[in-house]
Amino acid sequence: MGIAAIIGCGLIGQGWAIVFARAGWSVRMYDSDPAKAGEGRMLVARQLRTLRDHGLSGDPDAILARVALADTLETALAGVDYVQENSPEDLAVKQALFAQLDALAPATAILASSTSSIRASLFSREVPGQARCLVAHPVNPPYLVPVVEVCGAPWTAPETIAHCVAIMREVGQKPVVVRREIEGFILNRLQGALLQEALRLAEAGYASVEDIDATVKDGLGLRWAFMGPFETIDLNAPGGIADYCARYNGMYRSIGASQTGEPAWQGPAVQDLEAQRRERLPAADLHARRFWRDERLMQLLRHKQEAERKEGEERKECKERGA
Amino acid sequence: MGIAAIIGCGLIGQGWAIVFARAGWSVRMYDSDPAKAGEGRMLVARQLRTLRDHGLSGDPDAILARVALADTLETALAGVDYVQENSPEDLAVKQALFAQLDALAPATAILASSTSSIRASLFSREVPGQARCLVAHPVNPPYLVPVVEVCGAPWTAPETIAHCVAIMREVGQKPVVVRREIEGFILNRLQGALLQEALRLAEAGYASVEDIDATVKDGLGLRWAFMGPFETIDLNAPGGIADYCARYNGMYRSIGASQTGEPAWQGPAVQDLEAQRRERLPAADLHARRFWRDERLMQLLRHKQEAERKEGEERKECKERGA
Repeated sequence: MGIAAIIGCGLIGQGWAIVFARAGWSVRMYDSDPAKAGEGRMLVARQLRTLRDHGLSGDPDAILARVALADTLETALAGVDYVQENSPEDLAVKQALFAQLDALAPATAILASSTSSIRASLFSREVPGQARCLVAHPVNPPYLVPVVEVCGAPWTAPETIAHCVAIMREVGQKPVVVRREIEGFILNRLQGALLQEALRLAEAGYASVEDIDATVKDGLGLRWAFMGPFETIDLNAPGGIADYCARYNGMYRSIGASQTGEPAWQGPAVQDLEAQRRERLPAADLHARRFWRDERLMQLLRHKQEAERKEGEERKECKERGA
Repeated sequence: MGIAAIIGCGLIGQGWAIVFARAGWSVRMYDSDPAKAGEGRMLVARQLRTLRDHGLSGDPDAILARVALADTLETALAGVDYVQENSPEDLAVKQALFAQLDALAPATAILASSTSSIRASLFSREVPGQARCLVAHPVNPPYLVPVVEVCGAPWTAPETIAHCVAIMREVGQKPVVVRREIEGFILNRLQGALLQEALRLAEAGYASVEDIDATVKDGLGLRWAFMGPFETIDLNAPGGIADYCARYNGMYRSIGASQTGEPAWQGPAVQDLEAQRRERLPAADLHARRFWRDERLMQLLRHKQEAERKEGEERKECKERGA
């Protein structure tokens, strides 16, 4: 356990504060707008109570006691082990900020950005301590969706990556290492590939928006919620993944040949998506539905933790019987 | 409730027998190899006990009592409301079989194929009752993964589609209507789009097989397990799905432009996938891991049913308070 500085206290920053404090770390929240930092901490307090109610976190007061507000960047960074930056997606802002972070944070601290779209090589190019800079891209909210994409610049030290991965594991996240910089990292590239095909199918009228969603939530998404796409196909052919590829490459290659066109991302096709969604969920209900989503995410997380706990116990019993 | 004939008693046929019998239908199992039908019914009995143990099904004996073996195609089809065909993926076999089914089944019965790769227009072209023929493509096992892709030929009657959808809903499945024939229907096209990108990323070494899987199971797959991709993005921008498309189309279009190459489906890249998977899961453990997968699927299904039941109760309470 250590001290984490959260720089930028919007939704993502608040999420990171929860992740670190919940895991026992001391957290400093800093925002160039002090009112935002204060408001951020209040929202952290509220969210901690909800998480406790869902069995996803301990005593909210004890956790909140580990979250301090910092008035200045200097006090936020003094003695920290880890810095998570959550400023707007603006290269000039991040470049200036990382120069400051590097100047003020202890030499051993890791400097990580939450950015989803700006490569570490762009914001850390001119930073003297560029070897300790990298991206740690979370999904919102990080205390409910554990994956974190860790991606350095070509000059990021391997030790920085390894240390960041270790810290992410320690605080309960699931780090994945993106070994070279690539637009969209892994998550948005996979999401984009699926979304583009979903858009093509909807645009051409092969199925309704509701039915395309059902194909995932009542089909593909069930296994993907606890196995990845590779483990899924590894188990779907008698001889494993290479056997699967040998059996089904013809179908997928043939399908793939017709999945190359860029779907419409605007215009009548998107208006039709919007109309279909608003029929199912009026705009006035979007806000409430986001609470529903988070509620369901919390229940699902609890369910997964419970399933994994049981498996762990069974493995332990097995070993003890064997011993 | 009615009578369903299950033609072909391999894994898929057994799965359908469970789906219909569990929902109260009478089921006739027929296979051109009588030993296979008998074995299929035994495996149905075993699976029903497992489902009962997981709270996903009622009394196994009572359900099994509704599953009869038929010695001949004639007796299997006499008086049925619905026929589900599960023969090998061979066009000539299906053409001959559908001619027989059409000749022997009551004129009002629906004739559905489980095929994932042969269009209804191919196997029903010469069938006099082609208007009642269609594909009802399940995911294996259908009693755990509820989605069913319903897709007719151009000559399939709209009433046939509507009736099949109604029956699928009645037996607890989640039918999605594929409005025009297309290779891979919806599910395998979406899976293929994501798989191809996953293969590209693994092949180019951007991330390990394990980390690509983690990106889905600890990230994307969580929301997709209870919302589809469209509802997910609808909730991920303040103004809904059109707002999301306006905000992020630049990123996805740019990513999409680099997702066009066909990944390797064989050769060293696939050998590397296989090696990475076998390091995580030795070939000798594949079989046990499939049991693990089904166990987790059952737990997840139960979890989703419970979550939906609670929501239903809350909605009811809300209404009663309002009334």
